[in-house]
Amino acid sequence: MPGWFSAEKKVGNHDQYTAAAAPDVEVPLRWGERAGFLAGLRHLQPQINLACIAAETTLEKHMKLFYSPGACSLAVRIVAGEAGITLETESVNLADKRTASGEDYRKINPKGQVPALILDDGAILTEGPVIMQFLADQKPEANLAPAFGTMERYRLLEVLGFLNAEIHKSYSPMFHEMTDEARAERKELVRSKYPVLDTLLEGREWLVGNHFTVADAYMFTLTNWAPFLRVDLSEFENVQAFQRRMEKRPHVQAALRAEGLLNQ
Amino acid sequence: MPGWFSAEKKVGNHDQYTAAAAPDVEVPLRWGERAGFLAGLRHLQPQINLACIAAETTLEKHMKLFYSPGACSLAVRIVAGEAGITLETESVNLADKRTASGEDYRKINPKGQVPALILDDGAILTEGPVIMQFLADQKPEANLAPAFGTMERYRLLEVLGFLNAEIHKSYSPMFHEMTDEARAERKELVRSKYPVLDTLLEGREWLVGNHFTVADAYMFTLTNWAPFLRVDLSEFENVQAFQRRMEKRPHVQAALRAEGLLNQ
Repeated sequence: MPGWFSAEKKVGNHDQYTAAAAPDVEVPLRWGERAGFLAGLRHLQPQINLACIAAETTLEKHMKLFYSPGACSLAVRIVAGEAGITLETESVNLADKRTASGEDYRKINPKGQVPALILDDGAILTEGPVIMQFLADQKPEANLAPAFGTMERYRLLEVLGFLNAEIHKSYSPMFHEMTDEARAERKELVRSKYPVLDTLLEGREWLVGNHFTVADAYMFTLTNWAPFLRVDLSEFENVQAFQRRMEKRPHVQAALRAEGLLNQ
Repeated sequence: MPGWFSAEKKVGNHDQYTAAAAPDVEVPLRWGERAGFLAGLRHLQPQINLACIAAETTLEKHMKLFYSPGACSLAVRIVAGEAGITLETESVNLADKRTASGEDYRKINPKGQVPALILDDGAILTEGPVIMQFLADQKPEANLAPAFGTMERYRLLEVLGFLNAEIHKSYSPMFHEMTDEARAERKELVRSKYPVLDTLLEGREWLVGNHFTVADAYMFTLTNWAPFLRVDLSEFENVQAFQRRMEKRPHVQAALRAEGLLNQ
């Protein structure tokens, strides 16, 4: 069954919900039908137990991701997988700003960029590093971002800021038409940013702390652009080893596969 | 008395400290002498009371900012002022990467960029938006950043991310030599990013919530580059009105004055 709201996902740890409100309540699969469904569920409230209300709260956390294959939205997909959060997804053609279902994407995200995450209340959250943190914070038990207020959290923000402003934005123009000279300069600019990361990874497996965080998902996604754009990063051994480690993670492989970037 | 560690600041809400450990303990004014001072203070511990230990913790929050006049480090200075945090400051010549006292700045911040904040334990925090949040979080009563875990905090992160990756990094190359054609293109790129901010400020005074936050300090600082770089933003009326509002804030004026950017 397609979509984020499949029967398998609906039950999960919330079998009580199915037992209490099913079988005569059909869970809608399409985004636009969710509000009416939840209103109807609230209507049933006198008949259903507390477990069901808890399940309804959980339903509120279901979200929709707008992405483009291989774009930085891939990092959000990896994070969602690592966090065990199921997202509905819809691709966007970044050239004509149309969603797969034919909508004008600029009406959803005026910035016209991916990723964008629609929260269950209809609010839209943008900026990849922010969406990644938002998802990580939904599941603190997955340890994908250090707790708020710790020094480690600022270290995470610091690395995310560098990846966003220095690495990501150095690559970005290369996805558009450029003169050969401008492209050659751009490749050098990208390369000039990697010593910081190579040093940061010296003797370490991960960018922040001693385990995988959202920063690792972001770094992997951006650095994965280098072979495609023919930016030679082979001299950065720690970076190369990092990419190889990341490629082995099941949720990274699943995310690549979901976007048609891994043929197996 | 110059420097961040003046007698006025030392006492503040911690008169107990002065009473317990003074008058025979001289508080060092220079950065490099701090560690020895604190070690000495710990040595005195059997003689001093708990209030003194609390005061020692407060001392740990004194910090040093590396800046360049008018660079994005100005936003950090504004935030520190608004938060009521006194920072020691030292300027950096970004051309030759030397600090005012002649040190090689790359040994302090390998990225070679300002701002960098040295924390009292010697740790260095980089990336402007992160430093701004760190300072804001030291003084939650100043309301410069929404509380961790609230949706408003993610909104702050979202705006900071956009300002950093899209606005800041669109301006950056213009501070270096460019062909006339490249500069003209760059000006158009910068202008193309402002409709998002102009829309965000429609009918609102501030970027996030209903009062001043660190995002406003950052936006003001970046947009203040436009006249200097001859980027015409006059069509963005909400942005212009925002800049005028910001210029009236005493801590903005104090920060501009401290960096020699306001002659009065």
